[in-house]
Amino acid sequence: MLNQPLLCLLATSAVALGAINIPNLDFNQEAIDSGLALQAINSYALLKATTHLSGTCTLDKLKIRQEWRTLSKPQRREYVAAVQCIQARRSLLPPGLVPAAESIFDDFVWVHYNQTPFSHGTGNFLSWHRYYMHTYETHLRACGYTGALPYWSWPLDLDSVASSPLFDGSDTSIGSDGTPIPHEGMKLNWPGNTPTGDPFVYVSPGSGGGCVHTGPFSNLTVNFGEVALPVYGKEERLSSADPTAGGQSRCLKRDLNEEPGRKWSTWRNITELILENKNIEWFQGVMQGMVNYTGGVASLGVHGAGHYMIGGDPGSDPWITPGDPGFYFHHAGIDRVWWLWQMLDLDNRRDVFGTNTAMNNPPSEDTTVEDWLRLDPLAEKVKIKDVISTVGGDLCYVYI
Amino acid sequence: MLNQPLLCLLATSAVALGAINIPNLDFNQEAIDSGLALQAINSYALLKATTHLSGTCTLDKLKIRQEWRTLSKPQRREYVAAVQCIQARRSLLPPGLVPAAESIFDDFVWVHYNQTPFSHGTGNFLSWHRYYMHTYETHLRACGYTGALPYWSWPLDLDSVASSPLFDGSDTSIGSDGTPIPHEGMKLNWPGNTPTGDPFVYVSPGSGGGCVHTGPFSNLTVNFGEVALPVYGKEERLSSADPTAGGQSRCLKRDLNEEPGRKWSTWRNITELILENKNIEWFQGVMQGMVNYTGGVASLGVHGAGHYMIGGDPGSDPWITPGDPGFYFHHAGIDRVWWLWQMLDLDNRRDVFGTNTAMNNPPSEDTTVEDWLRLDPLAEKVKIKDVISTVGGDLCYVYI
Repeated sequence: MLNQPLLCLLATSAVALGAINIPNLDFNQEAIDSGLALQAINSYALLKATTHLSGTCTLDKLKIRQEWRTLSKPQRREYVAAVQCIQARRSLLPPGLVPAAESIFDDFVWVHYNQTPFSHGTGNFLSWHRYYMHTYETHLRACGYTGALPYWSWPLDLDSVASSPLFDGSDTSIGSDGTPIPHEGMKLNWPGNTPTGDPFVYVSPGSGGGCVHTGPFSNLTVNFGEVALPVYGKEERLSSADPTAGGQSRCLKRDLNEEPGRKWSTWRNITELILENKNIEWFQGVMQGMVNYTGGVASLGVHGAGHYMIGGDPGSDPWITPGDPGFYFHHAGIDRVWWLWQMLDLDNRRDVFGTNTAMNNPPSEDTTVEDWLRLDPLAEKVKIKDVISTVGGDLCYVYI
Repeated sequence: MLNQPLLCLLATSAVALGAINIPNLDFNQEAIDSGLALQAINSYALLKATTHLSGTCTLDKLKIRQEWRTLSKPQRREYVAAVQCIQARRSLLPPGLVPAAESIFDDFVWVHYNQTPFSHGTGNFLSWHRYYMHTYETHLRACGYTGALPYWSWPLDLDSVASSPLFDGSDTSIGSDGTPIPHEGMKLNWPGNTPTGDPFVYVSPGSGGGCVHTGPFSNLTVNFGEVALPVYGKEERLSSADPTAGGQSRCLKRDLNEEPGRKWSTWRNITELILENKNIEWFQGVMQGMVNYTGGVASLGVHGAGHYMIGGDPGSDPWITPGDPGFYFHHAGIDRVWWLWQMLDLDNRRDVFGTNTAMNNPPSEDTTVEDWLRLDPLAEKVKIKDVISTVGGDLCYVYI
């Protein structure tokens, strides 16, 4: 009888790990450009994911992350209410330590700010943000949200971001565009772009620029000071002397903008990012528009594009961008793109590439999957290897 | 040791049959009208299907049926070549029995013709066609096709059916529209519509009408005589004295037409068909546009719409419509819609409704899942219960 558990385990694994034959990744250009290829890739990913559940991730626990506009209106309102709930819950940081952090929502901004140099342009960029998004979802669920984290599919809004169900100012959106103000656009040399700051990427003015005027979060205050906020029309950035000090509260500003999406986050951009990059180094490099991976072409990449489709303050400030509730929709979208890419060859796409400092500056150790991801005080630390699969442990989610 | 196999079986089943929580079927109208809801439903269906594999259907055998335009161009050419192959292979019928049946492709027309009264407006309508489509796939694979049966997603072509990658006349299509000829449209009282023949449904002229002029199958001959071919501008239909006699070969005609799709096969039509009909009686009744289920409104339904988006001869003749290779794309689409509907509540959507004769005329027994589906000489008979799930036995396929 001694061998029975082992035998049973093997029998179970055979069901869970049977091979799916993915029939076609050789899409023609029309299928790529129309989004049908990405839809097919998502279907392949689901087939792979649901047949590779392991560890504590079982079917009854599986969370299904959906695009915002496929949620029902009551679900969207429940989500908004949960964000408002974590904005009302007192910060988990020791009192007085970070005066700008008033709420749990602010704690997310603080954790991002605090770790920006160690989670952007690093080997843990994707995994750190995956765990960060999961932790956001966990706090929303602790505040009564019963769904899974929603995401934003950028190409659906390339006609008009301001008309998106996500940003249309209705009570089932996360608030409107900013009030229109004339400005001269942004000349960006943001950290993900290039180690030397060249070439610059120019982003034209969007349709807003001022304070969010309608809908949920039009009354939200941005509590952290500017860290590296692009100044319209100039190459310089605005920085507060101490972004974490209190007394710097201001309105949430947005400058919704189709242009970055049309340039760098079309169906074609996203689908070719997934299909044409066969290792994690290139995949994450192209996604972030790093010039070493774009043939020297100035690009925001799929990652940067979504950030600057929202823009504004703090949306366009890389350090504190999670102070806009839109951030979490964009980065769930980014996590989905990584997930789609992983699921096409899950056995071989569990690795990381890079070092532990942004663009390896200052020089640091190579990142490994044994490294820790830290979000104190929002969650326990975990190892990268524990979040490298979304269906291999406590994360337990898929995207549809 | 005697209990070990049983224990292992239980452990395996627990993995295969765990419950998936489908989070949302309460889509708002914009999500329904844009196709995003149907896409989400397809994702739910995949989650359900891959976790409910049973019998001989295992992951490594699972076939993935895709929309035509998501196949690569080499795959599309391979498909076309396989259809040409079954058009070149000699009929499996006893020599001399059915003179019009020259090839295996013709055998499919004959089987459909022969069983039209017992597989349309009957309790086996959906299951009979499911097995028919599966058998077509089997013969294509015996002719060298390595893929799964492709399907047609009609709403993708509501701007112009003639521009569809399926019908654009390229070498990766199944041939072009018919040569344009002026005509007065069709006044249809086809069998699926109403027991009394009223009300008529008018279909405006499409963009063709004459012989398919370009691309694959422009040289195909239609070998069976007309059975109930709508005559343009009139209420009557054209019938050959003996459709199965030889010597009636003629060109394949098409009259590609957006109108039926825009009226009855939009994203909204298809999605609401799936979401709003909770039992098989209503689901299949609405799908076929039967007036008892449409509040008396004259409608082709999702099923009829696709047929008349192709039109022509034999496309618009209900008895011999499989003589157009487009038929199989439409009916794979129909099978997909049934599959999507089933997967939303698989445990309760394994039943049938209706009798064994078209519109129960003449009166006949109620159909049961123990009834046989017959396709002689193309396949062995099977019981309805053996094809009621696409992942419960030898069928073993999903749609993406």
